[in-house]
Amino acid sequence: MSVPQVGHLDPYFIGLMDEIQELLRYSFQTDNQLTVPISGTGSAGMEACIANLVEPGDRVVVGCNGYFGGRLAEMASRYGGEVESLTKPWGEVFALDELAGALAEHRPAILGLIHAETSTGARQPLDGVADLCRQHGCLLLVDTVTSLGGLPVRVDEWGIDAAYSGTQKCLSCPPGLGPVTFGARAAAKLEARRSRVTSWYLDLSLLLAYWGGGQRTYHHTAPISMNYGLREALRLVAEEGLEERWRRHRDSAEALWSGLGEMGLECHVAAEHRLPSLTTIRVPEGVDPGGVVKTLLAEDRIEIGGGLGELAGKVWRVGLMGYNSRRENVDRLLAALRRILGR
Amino acid sequence: MSVPQVGHLDPYFIGLMDEIQELLRYSFQTDNQLTVPISGTGSAGMEACIANLVEPGDRVVVGCNGYFGGRLAEMASRYGGEVESLTKPWGEVFALDELAGALAEHRPAILGLIHAETSTGARQPLDGVADLCRQHGCLLLVDTVTSLGGLPVRVDEWGIDAAYSGTQKCLSCPPGLGPVTFGARAAAKLEARRSRVTSWYLDLSLLLAYWGGGQRTYHHTAPISMNYGLREALRLVAEEGLEERWRRHRDSAEALWSGLGEMGLECHVAAEHRLPSLTTIRVPEGVDPGGVVKTLLAEDRIEIGGGLGELAGKVWRVGLMGYNSRRENVDRLLAALRRILGR
Repeated sequence: MSVPQVGHLDPYFIGLMDEIQELLRYSFQTDNQLTVPISGTGSAGMEACIANLVEPGDRVVVGCNGYFGGRLAEMASRYGGEVESLTKPWGEVFALDELAGALAEHRPAILGLIHAETSTGARQPLDGVADLCRQHGCLLLVDTVTSLGGLPVRVDEWGIDAAYSGTQKCLSCPPGLGPVTFGARAAAKLEARRSRVTSWYLDLSLLLAYWGGGQRTYHHTAPISMNYGLREALRLVAEEGLEERWRRHRDSAEALWSGLGEMGLECHVAAEHRLPSLTTIRVPEGVDPGGVVKTLLAEDRIEIGGGLGELAGKVWRVGLMGYNSRRENVDRLLAALRRILGR
Repeated sequence: MSVPQVGHLDPYFIGLMDEIQELLRYSFQTDNQLTVPISGTGSAGMEACIANLVEPGDRVVVGCNGYFGGRLAEMASRYGGEVESLTKPWGEVFALDELAGALAEHRPAILGLIHAETSTGARQPLDGVADLCRQHGCLLLVDTVTSLGGLPVRVDEWGIDAAYSGTQKCLSCPPGLGPVTFGARAAAKLEARRSRVTSWYLDLSLLLAYWGGGQRTYHHTAPISMNYGLREALRLVAEEGLEERWRRHRDSAEALWSGLGEMGLECHVAAEHRLPSLTTIRVPEGVDPGGVVKTLLAEDRIEIGGGLGELAGKVWRVGLMGYNSRRENVDRLLAALRRILGR
């Protein structure tokens, strides 16, 4: 990211854009032509999907089992969607028959699910969900902010119609871009829109005239350095290979879970639905959760998160993402927790 | 920008945010509390102003004498504004009595003007405009993308209610953030909104809970590296001093204009309305404008722009912004043009 700038229409940069798109397709496991990084953080990627897919009056069913489901629902509502929020206690996931029931009842245009809920550490299973959506003529929109590059995300094989992510989680790039990918059914909805996309900055049809095709029509000045960073991060993903990267995330998460168990600490999410990239640890009785976070930062230079929303004060959140997902970091954290908690 | 990342709620980063806000206020010459960098490029700054200030049905008068006036009008219309576009040939500016006539006729809620039209090289005079707006009870929104840090922008003294900019022009930072500032009257309109801001990502009331006040409530993950870059760019602006920086931009622009004159090349904009940061040169009869742009890039490693819109094929656009606005660059360009054009 400290490499000198070039113009956003410089032939060198155009070549770099092509590389980024190819590498993003690999990370998303998709052939979708419409695969681009939005010039904002992961939440801008989320908003780009909503702004383009939701038309006023569209019914949108959103799985709300954590903070980011709530954000997705809020955005869909702001863009004129008639939102039906499916709720679940934070840390649980939706079963296929629950989703089937919701689609049958609400007949939405879009189903939005959070694959990896950063606020809870839960992984939403997606087996069979795309088939359900096709049966009900609805699009499947999936949040992969904390899964892309850290655990399997197979956009084409799973039939995901649109997905978004951020750069600073398992892709291990600084925050600043929001990768999105749209399949044929989502692209068809874009083309059939009756109204303009309210957001000009996030309007994918305008963005595509710059990112896709031969014309490279100016839209906004691309954040050059951020794209340099993303290109290098994605290159490292490809160099390691997705399968190997997923295995590494899984291995270090399992080492963490096992070490926590030995200390008598409990994970909040059931083992089969845990994210390897983010673990929620239940705060033991009588322990001040904020105090532990502060001590870890001040004495051990380790940053972990507190609980959000329903889980505020009840859990700690430990990220093992991208470059950081390695055994030595797990061991360091476990040792620090043992010392601080006296376990 | 290659300094290691910290978390977006890390105490170190919170301190850096405070510094950025203070330095941005200096650059904008304002005491506005609501002065923040939007996490997107300059166009995201533009959209943040429109998304927050325009409510459906608001009448918005936009001065359209170039490409970016058109973009502002388009955004205002997408957010539900009833837009009246004042048009002028590209390269000209609006006289005070023309603006007075438009405000009297249309009674808008917002007047949007482009202080520095990057597509034409024209500087819109703002003397007396804020008084006019107050007489008509309307807000004055000003695009300072190509002026901030390069020529006088005095938000408080001039009575500008809201302004936005980009980082990659006269601030000499890589692209990726969109500084905005809102005065008391603009903030009052935000508070009195009858409807939610459609864009969640750009909703200033949410952004302020993170950037302002004591709570630092999480909104989106700030692009850490970009903020490092902006902080350093603004520090360099303060180190040089605005008056000195404006003088430097003026000096190198005058050297360019004079050199062009000696070559028999003509500036498109009248001398009194020329931007020091961006000069449009009329393409002489019989010269292929695109060919000159390509030769400059390939042989001289100098990037200049072609004409946009009304001026496509008719002008070249030469930026002398921030670090690049210096005599040696002017001399290099003039020598290259002399060689290529055989003058």
